[in-house]
Amino acid sequence: MSQTPKQTADRSVPTSADVARLAGVSRATVSYVLNNTASVRISEPTRRRVREAAEELGYVPHAAARSLRAGHTRMVVLPPATLPAGPLYGRFLAELQSALRRLDYTVVHYGSLGLDGDEAARSWAELRPVAVVALGEVGLTPHGVDVLKRSGARAVVTLGSRRVAGAHCFVMDQREVGARAVAHLVERGRRAIGVVMPQESGLERFSEPRIEGARRAAAAAGARIEALPLPYEEEPAAALAARWRGLGLDAVFTYNDDYAVLLMRALQDEGITIPAETAVIGADDLLLGRLQRPRLSTVHIDLVTGRKLAELVDRVVREPGEEPAVHDLMGARAVHRDST
Amino acid sequence: MSQTPKQTADRSVPTSADVARLAGVSRATVSYVLNNTASVRISEPTRRRVREAAEELGYVPHAAARSLRAGHTRMVVLPPATLPAGPLYGRFLAELQSALRRLDYTVVHYGSLGLDGDEAARSWAELRPVAVVALGEVGLTPHGVDVLKRSGARAVVTLGSRRVAGAHCFVMDQREVGARAVAHLVERGRRAIGVVMPQESGLERFSEPRIEGARRAAAAAGARIEALPLPYEEEPAAALAARWRGLGLDAVFTYNDDYAVLLMRALQDEGITIPAETAVIGADDLLLGRLQRPRLSTVHIDLVTGRKLAELVDRVVREPGEEPAVHDLMGARAVHRDST
Repeated sequence: MSQTPKQTADRSVPTSADVARLAGVSRATVSYVLNNTASVRISEPTRRRVREAAEELGYVPHAAARSLRAGHTRMVVLPPATLPAGPLYGRFLAELQSALRRLDYTVVHYGSLGLDGDEAARSWAELRPVAVVALGEVGLTPHGVDVLKRSGARAVVTLGSRRVAGAHCFVMDQREVGARAVAHLVERGRRAIGVVMPQESGLERFSEPRIEGARRAAAAAGARIEALPLPYEEEPAAALAARWRGLGLDAVFTYNDDYAVLLMRALQDEGITIPAETAVIGADDLLLGRLQRPRLSTVHIDLVTGRKLAELVDRVVREPGEEPAVHDLMGARAVHRDST
Repeated sequence: MSQTPKQTADRSVPTSADVARLAGVSRATVSYVLNNTASVRISEPTRRRVREAAEELGYVPHAAARSLRAGHTRMVVLPPATLPAGPLYGRFLAELQSALRRLDYTVVHYGSLGLDGDEAARSWAELRPVAVVALGEVGLTPHGVDVLKRSGARAVVTLGSRRVAGAHCFVMDQREVGARAVAHLVERGRRAIGVVMPQESGLERFSEPRIEGARRAAAAAGARIEALPLPYEEEPAAALAARWRGLGLDAVFTYNDDYAVLLMRALQDEGITIPAETAVIGADDLLLGRLQRPRLSTVHIDLVTGRKLAELVDRVVREPGEEPAVHDLMGARAVHRDST
């Protein structure tokens, strides 16, 4: 190694052998010092010499090598959600990640584009994560859970609409959101109810079960449901509002609060009064809804907090014997304001 | 290995030696088959036997071992932004991650909580990433860039308000956003301009340079600036609106469109006419602003796309000789609608 530390181009990566040579110690000593191995006694001058040599050469230990020796990692794989996430889910995800980092885990977003189900599980297993948290429908099967556990994953947690045997499951029943919205509208005397279906791809995972729940609640009350496809754009909303009176609807569940703001504006621009002619209810209970006139009724969704989820992951990692259980991911309740 | 594949508790992780034994081949053959090494000829029946043995034992290769052998990874470290991100930045980040995944990189969000500057850079270097993309002010120094490059990182890219020597830098001048907003208000004849300062922690990285730019543009035009601290909540907005007329302002730059919607509602509830009494301009150019009445004027921000950033990362990884350059992260221009 005749290079000076300041050179940057076309040089080889320094190794622990280079550090050992420069410090005049063994490679094992380098490893003990730089990995802070507490069980080995090494004098402070030697430690200092090793650290200075590492600094001079720009050497840092290799986390993969360390995890190979340790046999496990502190890595949590989060298969990435490809969903266009709303603000509620975005906040949940940010909270989950920062809570995991505070618990000293490394969060890895590992894609499985083009891979399905068990293939994806195998690709996550290759990273030897200590935990996998599958957010949404990523096709994880009981066999996939088994592959992960056999590769060393201590906690496999899923969030989704279905249980997966062997995993700790947070089950989120989106049908509840649609059912609560429609039950509220029915209570307010409405019987001809539109349900906005967003056209952004990925959202059907939420909108399909929501309208299913809406249909179920409507059927129980003798009300009718009409699906209203709508992209999140001004012009299609104006076009829908222009033909609104021909639809014969007296209420609309707008999928969420953002769509409610979009559609309310278009309806009001057409002179349609809310709630007299048409009652409007959203979902998510955003501040934005309270800023509307009339104030927007909504379905409030209580999601498990990211912090609680991170704590569960950590507990299962430390005590992997804990029997996999099914938890409720969320609760939903209608909030009555002035738009219904 | 007398266990059956279905057992899940208290068993050891299967190794490639177990697979080799069950398939009756060498460990090297197992490695060649499961890592799809193209340069070694192995018969199809042998391949099948290895795959079946791996499947039966639930064995998957270890990515860390493979990257140790290969000497590099396809890992891109994104030090996590701890910022409460707006929808614009959220979309950019989602796009960047999915573009990197499509280019076959593994995206790792690696925290550096409690670590500062060079210490953080060393902790990223331990993962031996092929690239690091530092989003925002994560304290990366030229020395940190050097540590990363010496550990094998081929691309170090920063996004922030400053240049970092040695890195490919996307420099984002938030002052421009404030300057464009105030220049627009001055053009519309306003001279007493409030600037909303959000109270959410983390946002000062944006709001401080924005008000600095606002002050600069105001000074050039003989206008005055008044900072208006405001959390994103209904009651403080109402309280600010209640004392609005006493402030003697004829315009307000609301930091972004979300705050504009919050403050416009509060001002209108107080009977203050927009734009006659007070002109309002936001930033981000969200659909939400066009849904307001009057339609919201705004500062449109052109961010580099996540896809373009991912392509730059990939190009530099493949040709690490490319001279580090400074790019503009964004452009900003005022969009005149009805609120100013």
